[in-house]
Amino acid sequence: MTTPAFRFTVEHESADCLARTGRLQTRRGEVRTPVYMPVGTAGSVKTLSPDEVRAAGASIILGNTYHLFLRPGTEVLERFGGLHRFMAWDRPLLTDSGGFQVFSLKKLNKITDEGVLFASHLDGARHWLTPEESMRIQRAIGAEIMMVLDECCPYPADETTARQALERSARWAARCRADHPAMREGQALFGIVQGSTFLPLRLESLARTAEVGFDGLAVGGLSVGEPKAEMLRILDGLMPAMPRDLPRYLMGVGSPEDLFYGVERGIDMFDCVLATRIARHGAAFTRRGRIDLTALPWRFSDEPIDSGCRCYACRTFSRGYLRHLFKAKEMLAMRLASLHNITFLITLMEEIREAIPQGRFLALQREFLDGYLKQEDRA
Amino acid sequence: MTTPAFRFTVEHESADCLARTGRLQTRRGEVRTPVYMPVGTAGSVKTLSPDEVRAAGASIILGNTYHLFLRPGTEVLERFGGLHRFMAWDRPLLTDSGGFQVFSLKKLNKITDEGVLFASHLDGARHWLTPEESMRIQRAIGAEIMMVLDECCPYPADETTARQALERSARWAARCRADHPAMREGQALFGIVQGSTFLPLRLESLARTAEVGFDGLAVGGLSVGEPKAEMLRILDGLMPAMPRDLPRYLMGVGSPEDLFYGVERGIDMFDCVLATRIARHGAAFTRRGRIDLTALPWRFSDEPIDSGCRCYACRTFSRGYLRHLFKAKEMLAMRLASLHNITFLITLMEEIREAIPQGRFLALQREFLDGYLKQEDRA
Repeated sequence: MTTPAFRFTVEHESADCLARTGRLQTRRGEVRTPVYMPVGTAGSVKTLSPDEVRAAGASIILGNTYHLFLRPGTEVLERFGGLHRFMAWDRPLLTDSGGFQVFSLKKLNKITDEGVLFASHLDGARHWLTPEESMRIQRAIGAEIMMVLDECCPYPADETTARQALERSARWAARCRADHPAMREGQALFGIVQGSTFLPLRLESLARTAEVGFDGLAVGGLSVGEPKAEMLRILDGLMPAMPRDLPRYLMGVGSPEDLFYGVERGIDMFDCVLATRIARHGAAFTRRGRIDLTALPWRFSDEPIDSGCRCYACRTFSRGYLRHLFKAKEMLAMRLASLHNITFLITLMEEIREAIPQGRFLALQREFLDGYLKQEDRA
Repeated sequence: MTTPAFRFTVEHESADCLARTGRLQTRRGEVRTPVYMPVGTAGSVKTLSPDEVRAAGASIILGNTYHLFLRPGTEVLERFGGLHRFMAWDRPLLTDSGGFQVFSLKKLNKITDEGVLFASHLDGARHWLTPEESMRIQRAIGAEIMMVLDECCPYPADETTARQALERSARWAARCRADHPAMREGQALFGIVQGSTFLPLRLESLARTAEVGFDGLAVGGLSVGEPKAEMLRILDGLMPAMPRDLPRYLMGVGSPEDLFYGVERGIDMFDCVLATRIARHGAAFTRRGRIDLTALPWRFSDEPIDSGCRCYACRTFSRGYLRHLFKAKEMLAMRLASLHNITFLITLMEEIREAIPQGRFLALQREFLDGYLKQEDRA
């Protein structure tokens, strides 16, 4: 019997909330869910080697289609046989559609039903991103999981704008599926639920996206500037309607507290650049809140970033040394903080996956947030 | 029987040149010579973790007294029990005197017989660096090998200037020795031979420095802008006069070809930022010369930086991927190139140490330079 190229199995479901555990089987191995996926924007999880990302416990990472299309480009990726081999990452990969970056660009020239005409942030060259082009690029990258091209609606948006984006996203979803039928070249394809902060639109988008038939469903367009309560209100209304048997991915969300909020509502997959981005500026997650490693109080501090953390940075160095490295602008500072922050989120997810089948998820959430948020308020 | 805090033993001497092998025993383990010492300017070999520096095979690294004095400062270093513990480096360390950086500073306020009044490049604060202050800072850092404060003579210098620097260096050497008598706190102290490009001054400086009595002797003030032939002429005249039983350290020199030129003339120790500095700009050593990893020809190249190299970068990644990382300004690029370049020099030294007792040093030199310099000329 051969391993299926893609299969998702729900293992445990909580009795007191929507939190659940599962297994995502792919041609490059298994991903236990819920899972936090570190982001390797341009073929590298910033500052880290793939060996370090593996040692941190990452079972799947993200690549950004927009960045990889512009650099190194599909010609290079195809010559190297895809991103896995190019960057020496042998575990599963997920790629976004490129849409989010293109819609965030200042130099967006035109949006039509055909696709998006945009100017590269590198050299100003103009390119069309269409559903079919996104599929083509994502096949060249070769991720286990690809995402449909959707129209990302900025926040705030009025209902008319949100509906238009929803309609276009639905048409593009169908074109992506047509261009990339079930498990073409062993690559799964996820649909994306849009609808901004309008719950009826969200539910309509879910129904129409699910109808197309995908290997997983993502929630897009959240954590784009709306108040946290808005995001949670949408998840509260939307998640109970999600099909049970498909993996559910909350795109671009991944602060420690949001991992809990999402898991509680039935999310299986998360990605976010927050962990590595704030690390490069000296901010580190701890069980007692986020700390600023560049701050004066750590000058003589002999304690690790987080005494419970198993990462190389915490096993080896003091906050005092890390503060020095940041002050001296040594790159090792950014590496160690990045390694710590992704290890922190991955470890947190391991604890969450352990707590769910034991019926302890909500208790773990209370305990964690009690320590984490109180201190963060203070900082 | 306890291990002596510091002992140098010459093991093999070549019959056809001055190349020799030896062992430097320190309280933190043994260093086999000739040795290349990577430079950890501000408490980190730039971009690399101490584990990586160890894995590259480094048996001793350098710290810069000037940088460490300004940041983190001796108060922090003393609180952490010295630089070894602060940066998690358990092998031997060598510190310079701070003099070279102070003399290179634009904001040098005054040189007197007492010392040098300089303004910090960080905040403009004025500090005195005297022989005694250099000893004090170096004791706070806690290296196995300390260097005397000397006056570095720029190139070109007339004979009068060179003599004045020599005289002052001789007086300062005596004050350093007085302040730091033999193996105080387990730390060895090396004297420095100055004299610019004037061989008679070099020989006089050697005699007067040796007379003070040090645990090793360095050659300073070379590779400061003079033509390579000048450096070799001075080494040719000076090195045969060096005492046999002391380790000999050529300061700030460490290109692949210079390692050979120095070893041939009897040098035991080298340090240089070249390997890590050029790496951060995309230049990598190979057996066939220095290559520019950012260059277009590597776009599709599947070969490693250097096919004979054992480093993680060469075992794992292609030139094509490294080119992409440099183009995308990913920090991992600088890390991998730095790791490769120091591994390259350390491996070269291992080969040199093996060739010397087998009487093959000059043959190895010819073979290496034949491949390395021809290609470098082309680049």
